[in-house]
Amino acid sequence: MKRLLTMNELTISEMEHILAEAEQFANGAVWRPQQQTMVANLFFEPSTRTKSSFEMAERKLGLEVIPFDAGASSVLKGETLYDTARTFESIGVKALVIRHEQDHYFEQLLGKQLNIPIVNAGDGCGHHPTQSLLDLLTIKQEFNTFKGLKIAIIGDITHSRVARSNAIALTRLGAKVVFSGPPEWFDENSGLGEYEAIDQAITTSDVVMLLRIQHERHDSSVETNDYLTQYGLTKEREQMMKPHAIIMHPAPINRGVEIDSELVECSRSRIFKQMQNGVFVRMAVLKNVLEQFEGGTLHENSHQKWSITQ
Amino acid sequence: MKRLLTMNELTISEMEHILAEAEQFANGAVWRPQQQTMVANLFFEPSTRTKSSFEMAERKLGLEVIPFDAGASSVLKGETLYDTARTFESIGVKALVIRHEQDHYFEQLLGKQLNIPIVNAGDGCGHHPTQSLLDLLTIKQEFNTFKGLKIAIIGDITHSRVARSNAIALTRLGAKVVFSGPPEWFDENSGLGEYEAIDQAITTSDVVMLLRIQHERHDSSVETNDYLTQYGLTKEREQMMKPHAIIMHPAPINRGVEIDSELVECSRSRIFKQMQNGVFVRMAVLKNVLEQFEGGTLHENSHQKWSITQ
Amino acid sequence: MKRLLTMNELTISEMEHILAEAEQFANGAVWRPQQQTMVANLFFEPSTRTKSSFEMAERKLGLEVIPFDAGASSVLKGETLYDTARTFESIGVKALVIRHEQDHYFEQLLGKQLNIPIVNAGDGCGHHPTQSLLDLLTIKQEFNTFKGLKIAIIGDITHSRVARSNAIALTRLGAKVVFSGPPEWFDENSGLGEYEAIDQAITTSDVVMLLRIQHERHDSSVETNDYLTQYGLTKEREQMMKPHAIIMHPAPINRGVEIDSELVECSRSRIFKQMQNGVFVRMAVLKNVLEQFEGGTLHENSHQKWSITQ
Repeated sequence: MKRLLTMNELTISEMEHILAEAEQFANGAVWRPQQQTMVANLFFEPSTRTKSSFEMAERKLGLEVIPFDAGASSVLKGETLYDTARTFESIGVKALVIRHEQDHYFEQLLGKQLNIPIVNAGDGCGHHPTQSLLDLLTIKQEFNTFKGLKIAIIGDITHSRVARSNAIALTRLGAKVVFSGPPEWFDENSGLGEYEAIDQAITTSDVVMLLRIQHERHDSSVETNDYLTQYGLTKEREQMMKPHAIIMHPAPINRGVEIDSELVECSRSRIFKQMQNGVFVRMAVLKNVLEQFEGGTLHENSHQKWSITQ
Repeated sequence: MKRLLTMNELTISEMEHILAEAEQFANGAVWRPQQQTMVANLFFEPSTRTKSSFEMAERKLGLEVIPFDAGASSVLKGETLYDTARTFESIGVKALVIRHEQDHYFEQLLGKQLNIPIVNAGDGCGHHPTQSLLDLLTIKQEFNTFKGLKIAIIGDITHSRVARSNAIALTRLGAKVVFSGPPEWFDENSGLGEYEAIDQAITTSDVVMLLRIQHERHDSSVETNDYLTQYGLTKEREQMMKPHAIIMHPAPINRGVEIDSELVECSRSRIFKQMQNGVFVRMAVLKNVLEQFEGGTLHENSHQKWSITQ
Repeated sequence: MKRLLTMNELTISEMEHILAEAEQFANGAVWRPQQQTMVANLFFEPSTRTKSSFEMAERKLGLEVIPFDAGASSVLKGETLYDTARTFESIGVKALVIRHEQDHYFEQLLGKQLNIPIVNAGDGCGHHPTQSLLDLLTIKQEFNTFKGLKIAIIGDITHSRVARSNAIALTRLGAKVVFSGPPEWFDENSGLGEYEAIDQAITTSDVVMLLRIQHERHDSSVETNDYLTQYGLTKEREQMMKPHAIIMHPAPINRGVEIDSELVECSRSRIFKQMQNGVFVRMAVLKNVLEQFEGGTLHENSHQKWSITQ
């Protein structure tokens, strides 16, 4: 695996390989590169969870993280993303983790002279593969299989990176995915799966996967006051869930909107478990791209004609 | 010691224990956790000194610090402080150092499922216990005792975390604390100590502890031009101090306001000594909370029913 | 070498010493301080390249970097640069790398009680010595000498730290430096060198050193649309360069303004090579200031009369 841009790039066996390695990391396995290895996390959008989770994964692998602050960077001076990435490669960074508000930002990095692996930590409303992988790990730890499971993804499907990546991956792995939430937020023609009314979705699913209402991406003003009652996970709806069914949410949570605040840490909730798993899948992903990226060594002296020291 | 929120929580013997360990660190003692240990500093207010001092203390203990930028965090997306703290716990952070503009912010973190130690690095106008401890260490190094000392705390007492925490701790330890500065900034009914006119306070005290005028917290416009003459430490007043008396200031300093710029590094000044001591008391505090916090191990697999790898 | 503020401070043999050590680092040499050593990078202006390059250099030397965010620092509370620097010294930082928008900011740090080495990472429109050193290294690796070389510095000479530092250093080392670009951006009386028309400069030089148009520093609105045609490195002009001549640019690049986008990574371009070299010269500079700074040990107990522990 030379990079991780979207879930679609991964074969099912690659997914399973990453999940297995993530599980090994969860159980205390240790992997470290043989040499001092620097990476950088280029986050062009606010993030606590994903950025900290990658940082933690990197430290646990013994990597050193070169800080990057988009707000104080040369991007302000009009530098292209490609030139920023090439800069980090030039100074000796061996992998880049990038979050960027632009869909498919990574396309401008491909097929050029950039020669280090990219791990996509979220592009616009597009993909967020490590979030999908941590969701998969959490589900697999719970049910030991994806086949035959029914997963309801509820909420802001149009603007959710997670919804898309997850729906596709879960379907490929044999699960049935349905969607619920405000009908106007669901595109019938997306081809991702069917829409179900909220009560039906919640009462019949093994996994109730809530999505965050992304206020910062919404133009239309959704009445968040009514959202919990109409489409959120109330205490009443939680009572209607199947006995073994679990609750997931990518966080950050809008308490009292997508979910009743008291349910956030209830026994069905795997919300903080998902965060724990995030570190382990990111360790696995970073291990794989660093290990297998043969072009990862910089040829520092490639242009050099003379050596100053004999 | 499972956390450090306020000085009031500490017994006198706990204070003395921390000061003794801080002194050992100042003399080169080394303590490191047995395993790779990550912590995070959640600073929701600007700070150079306190944040850098904690960072330095953490590095000297061999801890790894997961960066957190409040301005680029999910707090912008409406996440609660509790959920942010639980997130850091979930990803494997073993202690949180928090500065927050809200008085007693830490109360919203207590009595729930958050299971890692909190070190308070300043809450609103409330407490700042590690600042108090470094002041105590500086005084004890100077006089070897607190009993019988007279300490004048001068300036912006109403808005000062330091004034309050220090006055209480010093009184408990046997010192006499008096206050001076603009009378309208002193609340007679605070029960913290007596008010003295500036010249009397300065000429009779063993420790002249100046407070910063916190422009950013003041509604009323104090005439800072006149402040030095009326209530500040001028060169004339410094001449009137007792022979062995010392000058302290928590910094950042408004040179020419609380203190004549030329006195900042005079032989009586312990201002930069205080900063040095800050690192050592923070090392001692972090050592104690990490060492004694038995709940500090995350039960990563607590919710897990299946293991992917055999 | 106890500090590095400007190129003028360096003797020719000191320059050559740093270049030789930088080359050794490029070839894999390792140097690390004997004890855990912390440094801080105080960047008061946005920067990706220089800050990341110093970070990388520091990590490769095994140094630990205490983070500093100017936007969240006590500078907002009116602290002087000197007090900020003294604070970092007090907490135990052993060297400071500083970038500041004020010309000659470092003069306010000299001749006082600040006792740790300063490395200037750029002051206003003044100096940027490590950029000059990396340019020198890149040129020396290419031509093995400076004597007899002709170097054309093209563009925003008035506002360029690089132009000034480089012109002086290159002239001292025996090269001939000429300037080109918009004539109104060149001061005849600077004494730095002669002005040549763009086509003449490009066709006769061994090194074509392009400068960035610093939009953020310009009051007058330069028509950047026409800049490439009039003064930039077009594909036509590149064809007219001497066979062995190389292209340099300090970056960040305004693609299509100073240089045709397609030339950025052409075979003549040493732009990303310069960035690689930046890490190695900074390693050499940091090694030298840390190694030779005898005053670098803090006397933490200098003011102390009593030891708490026996």
